[in-house]
Amino acid sequence: MTAKPEILIQSPWYEPAMCRLDELGVTHHLWQAADPDALLAEVGPRCSIIGTFQVCPASLIRAVPNLELILTFGVGYDGVDVAEATRRGVRVVNTPSVLNDCVADLAMALVLAGRRQVVQADRYAREGRWERDGDYPYTLHVTGCRVGIVGLGRIGMEIAARCAAFKMEICYHQRTPRSDVPWTHHPDLVGMARECDILVVIVPGGDATRHLVGEEVMAALGPRGHLVNVARGSVIDTDALVRCLNDGRLGSAALDVYPDEPRIPRALLDITANLTLTPHIASATHHTRMAMGMVLHDNLRAWLDGRRLITPVN
Amino acid sequence: MTAKPEILIQSPWYEPAMCRLDELGVTHHLWQAADPDALLAEVGPRCSIIGTFQVCPASLIRAVPNLELILTFGVGYDGVDVAEATRRGVRVVNTPSVLNDCVADLAMALVLAGRRQVVQADRYAREGRWERDGDYPYTLHVTGCRVGIVGLGRIGMEIAARCAAFKMEICYHQRTPRSDVPWTHHPDLVGMARECDILVVIVPGGDATRHLVGEEVMAALGPRGHLVNVARGSVIDTDALVRCLNDGRLGSAALDVYPDEPRIPRALLDITANLTLTPHIASATHHTRMAMGMVLHDNLRAWLDGRRLITPVN
Repeated sequence: MTAKPEILIQSPWYEPAMCRLDELGVTHHLWQAADPDALLAEVGPRCSIIGTFQVCPASLIRAVPNLELILTFGVGYDGVDVAEATRRGVRVVNTPSVLNDCVADLAMALVLAGRRQVVQADRYAREGRWERDGDYPYTLHVTGCRVGIVGLGRIGMEIAARCAAFKMEICYHQRTPRSDVPWTHHPDLVGMARECDILVVIVPGGDATRHLVGEEVMAALGPRGHLVNVARGSVIDTDALVRCLNDGRLGSAALDVYPDEPRIPRALLDITANLTLTPHIASATHHTRMAMGMVLHDNLRAWLDGRRLITPVN
Repeated sequence: MTAKPEILIQSPWYEPAMCRLDELGVTHHLWQAADPDALLAEVGPRCSIIGTFQVCPASLIRAVPNLELILTFGVGYDGVDVAEATRRGVRVVNTPSVLNDCVADLAMALVLAGRRQVVQADRYAREGRWERDGDYPYTLHVTGCRVGIVGLGRIGMEIAARCAAFKMEICYHQRTPRSDVPWTHHPDLVGMARECDILVVIVPGGDATRHLVGEEVMAALGPRGHLVNVARGSVIDTDALVRCLNDGRLGSAALDVYPDEPRIPRALLDITANLTLTPHIASATHHTRMAMGMVLHDNLRAWLDGRRLITPVN
């Protein structure tokens, strides 16, 4: 019997799934260590695997000289230095696909809650204002709107399928048009925003999309427009968003992601009338987090058995 | 040229649409009168039409002896004494169909916001708890759930179409099964609730459905179940709902309607962890309220022209 592989857990994920890795190897929990540097120095050389909730810088990769595989929980891997991993022959796997539905669901929750002002209306009701001040002000509708999806990948396709049930006119922006959808492709994001009531952002993060949605896009979406971000905080220019929401150039927004999580800029927290904020919960259901964890588990088992990785990134 | 008909406005609706009635007749606004009884005594005998936001008791019908037509804004007419109207040969029209989409949209907003805890997550984020206390707790998913629709009428059908896009397993409860849908009909509501994750209530109000959703239904839906009401407050036993939400027999609920609007019982206002409240806003978008108002306008014009009523209730 061969020795069990040793696994360095940089940061934890859904516990009922994470603990299943103990079936396949010996885990060392860096995030729980009183002295992480000491633990890393001690067990780093023995570990061939890193498990992480989307954080794995080059420094950590270098500190684990016999590293062969990085398991990153989630679909986005902009926090993992994949280039450095690839240079060292280290494979990276993520957990795509199984979270598409839950992320698309939250996108729709933020479309609907934002347009119909569910958070604000709940506040109005609880403050007793209905009885005191009369009916809640009229809001904007959802069905039949024109929606622009920024990034028509796997999750974007799920969002589009849901938007179709709301009889929306669908268009999308990304570099390359898709040949398998009937919806209008816009190579120009500002131009698309001008024609839309609702914009849903679901592109990968990283340098290529940093501040893709800036002041010009927001102003083009306009004072009756609604902006939803379930991608990465870096994709939106937060300062511009604060300005546009406050001066009315943009109607409303709903965000699940932020540039410096778990911190949310004070300027955003202060906007209540036309902004809905959720703390990066798009895939955070029991069902989906378990499924995501099992994708890592299944990849590791495949790798240990000498089979092909199921969801390789590199 | 014949004299313009006189119209008694009992309660107002969407102003940009209501004011269009002035094109067709002379309006008297009872709801604005300093002395409503005096106004009613003065103009009542001259009016042949009442316009109302869903309130027209027998006493008012009797106070307008030459009444021929009641225009009620909204699809539900449980606040209008249609039996009394019919006895007196008075026609009643409501505004069905044009609000189906917006009500179905709000139903979905309350399904999604409730299951994914959007209101609670927004509160968590704004209170700075993400940074201080860590990630928001995992929630329950939406896609793939089993949904039971209580009342598969015009709005129920729109809700079902949206649920289908979320890959839900759909069933429904009402007396008579529909022959035009593939979904499972449950003659027994408790039995259906037992098999569902989510229950959406969209039956007509009135005595026939009073407290249709009681303690037994809620307990059958269970501690992971979610109850949405976009019908009438009378359909749900509010006291039972408070008990079941507080002791965990029912997982969560989201309500747009209440037994004694605009009052919301204090016991409901106090439940924040697993309850979302909106102040009867299901059809309250600019777009839909305008369309609803124009349905009344078009009915009145048809009636004045001697054509058939478009949306008669009796």
